[in-house]
Amino acid sequence: MSITHPAGFLAAGEHIGIKANGNKDLALVVNQGPRFDSASVFTSNRCKANPVLWSEEAVKDGVVKAVVLNSGGANCYTGADGFVTTHRVAEEVASTLGIGAIDVVVCSTGLIGLKNDRDVLLAGVHTVHDKLSGDGGDDAAHAIMTTDSVSKQVVVERTTDQGSWSIGGMAKGAGMLAPALATMLVVITTDAVVPADELDAALRASTRVSFDRLDSDGCQSTNDTVTVMASGASGVTPTAEELTEALTEVCTSLAKQLLADAEGADHEISIRTVNAASEDDAVEVGRSVARSNLFKAAVFGKDPNWGRVLASIGTTSAAFDPADLDVAMNDVWVCRNSGPSEDPTGVDLEPRQVTVTIDLKSGDAEATVWTNDLTHAYVHENSAYSS
Amino acid sequence: MSITHPAGFLAAGEHIGIKANGNKDLALVVNQGPRFDSASVFTSNRCKANPVLWSEEAVKDGVVKAVVLNSGGANCYTGADGFVTTHRVAEEVASTLGIGAIDVVVCSTGLIGLKNDRDVLLAGVHTVHDKLSGDGGDDAAHAIMTTDSVSKQVVVERTTDQGSWSIGGMAKGAGMLAPALATMLVVITTDAVVPADELDAALRASTRVSFDRLDSDGCQSTNDTVTVMASGASGVTPTAEELTEALTEVCTSLAKQLLADAEGADHEISIRTVNAASEDDAVEVGRSVARSNLFKAAVFGKDPNWGRVLASIGTTSAAFDPADLDVAMNDVWVCRNSGPSEDPTGVDLEPRQVTVTIDLKSGDAEATVWTNDLTHAYVHENSAYSS
Repeated sequence: MSITHPAGFLAAGEHIGIKANGNKDLALVVNQGPRFDSASVFTSNRCKANPVLWSEEAVKDGVVKAVVLNSGGANCYTGADGFVTTHRVAEEVASTLGIGAIDVVVCSTGLIGLKNDRDVLLAGVHTVHDKLSGDGGDDAAHAIMTTDSVSKQVVVERTTDQGSWSIGGMAKGAGMLAPALATMLVVITTDAVVPADELDAALRASTRVSFDRLDSDGCQSTNDTVTVMASGASGVTPTAEELTEALTEVCTSLAKQLLADAEGADHEISIRTVNAASEDDAVEVGRSVARSNLFKAAVFGKDPNWGRVLASIGTTSAAFDPADLDVAMNDVWVCRNSGPSEDPTGVDLEPRQVTVTIDLKSGDAEATVWTNDLTHAYVHENSAYSS
Repeated sequence: MSITHPAGFLAAGEHIGIKANGNKDLALVVNQGPRFDSASVFTSNRCKANPVLWSEEAVKDGVVKAVVLNSGGANCYTGADGFVTTHRVAEEVASTLGIGAIDVVVCSTGLIGLKNDRDVLLAGVHTVHDKLSGDGGDDAAHAIMTTDSVSKQVVVERTTDQGSWSIGGMAKGAGMLAPALATMLVVITTDAVVPADELDAALRASTRVSFDRLDSDGCQSTNDTVTVMASGASGVTPTAEELTEALTEVCTSLAKQLLADAEGADHEISIRTVNAASEDDAVEVGRSVARSNLFKAAVFGKDPNWGRVLASIGTTSAAFDPADLDVAMNDVWVCRNSGPSEDPTGVDLEPRQVTVTIDLKSGDAEATVWTNDLTHAYVHENSAYSS
């Protein structure tokens, strides 16, 4: 159940002295090959953290041999000195492994605007290097947690005529979840044989329908990174379809684990828009509902307030007839033809899982967007003095 | 201090039996002329309430002689039958006043998805008609309140060589405040002589820099209406500049009164973006910060979290250098060149008024957007079971 499940990977996670509470705070994941293909996606926020600025360059040649990740400080908006810290960490990892720094992805998470202690990090690199092992994935997954209450991990296995191969994934992220990736660090490993360009295509196809459909609170992070490394150690070459299917299962599982652990959330809300003129329309409609504080507060209050759903749909540019929208909550069609229909008191919003179905009656495309409710706990966690 | 201050207007506000708590719930404002020029703007939400669908037609010829407004029910998403209710109310007002129904604007506010009792409304039209008076503006302003804790009213007076003229305004709105108008009903009266087309131009210029800059919670209402009526009773013809200036003062005052009374808010936040390449850029940047739940929760927690400001700016398409942004909170420049600068502990967030200044260093345009913080009280008020 970890990123060291696929053959060819070592990992470690240790407390090196960044977090005051003594929890693990530095992770290292190493690809031992024989192949070193990789693909990555990063936050689309234009104000990027230093590790993202570094890693965007490091991944350009499609080769990544190691990922080093620290929690306890995002190294974001820390200026040129913060970039030097990132660079020095990459160099330290590279020298301990005997590889080039340009093959090392660096990720940081935690408070922004705060410098990480460079000396602590550089010493810590040796600590985690000494602990690298073929079953260190679970430790690594714990070392990247911040406000996460649980670690997020997944393994998917596939068997083909050539033999079996697998994908492992780990993620962290609990707040600031939004489209185009969210405060989210994700490392995915596979022992499949996949050239970097095919891996890139599969990763983009997978994240488009998983992480990009997650919109917990509409806030877009500065540090988001998803990196997949392929060791080729299984000797199995899946087809593009097989790879994309398995990678999508991994990304979807991790996205739903992030959703389930979102800061202060009481409900996990799945918004499915059907009969849309296009998938883009369906995503736009779902996201507009996912971003309505009024709708999200209503779900927290167990109020099946479909009027707030319609009011959100009305802000989009999607194709639909404003007088002919149907909305179901937990499969009760509380709204038909943009008016009241089945009795909303039949919608039981006690359970954590909530579904909203929106019928646009304008085509045959569909998409699902996931979000959380807006709760007192969310306000509390995000209003605590933190900078 | 009310909409009956300008010459030529009568108003009334009474309890007619819609609200269970006995508060005033129907208002009528009548222009007695001699002129009947008008201008209106409505919500840009595509899912509009029945009164908006009616009123959009009623205002097309530039003539409005009366506005009837009920609280206690929005008549939104109530289907064809709800539209009949709106139409019948307009007809009843018209017949009591001896005018045409097409010169009557109808506004409703309250819960959506709930039908208004037609018979109660029609009987109530006669009740308010019987109470019409030259000092009934204050009653009218109270009759349109929903979750508002105070009525919102303003009067602006101007003296010219021709004599004096004035503008009166009233507004309601406390939640669902967002750009392009917010659950907001606004009636403005003036005794100036202004042709309808000039009134329209002045109203659009005024709302663009007042109501459209207010973004309390990012949710866009279904019922928003702003109607201005000009009686010409003062005999004074202001210039376009004079009219726009005075109307902007009225709209800005009402917008700030709405901001001050927003549901559950602890802080009023003014986000000023300076040195932008264009006014549109400045508005986009301000609005992105105004819509960040993380930033708004931080202000509630009295945390001068400038990192969340930068993270929001980074989601926009405005012109700026991500490595060279300055941010001040309450005039303390906590961020210079996208890094930490003055000590954030010097920012006192105890007072209700908060200013954020963002320097994009990319031009000479600027704009200010207003918002509120995200509080426990907001979540509480909007999660109470209401449909």
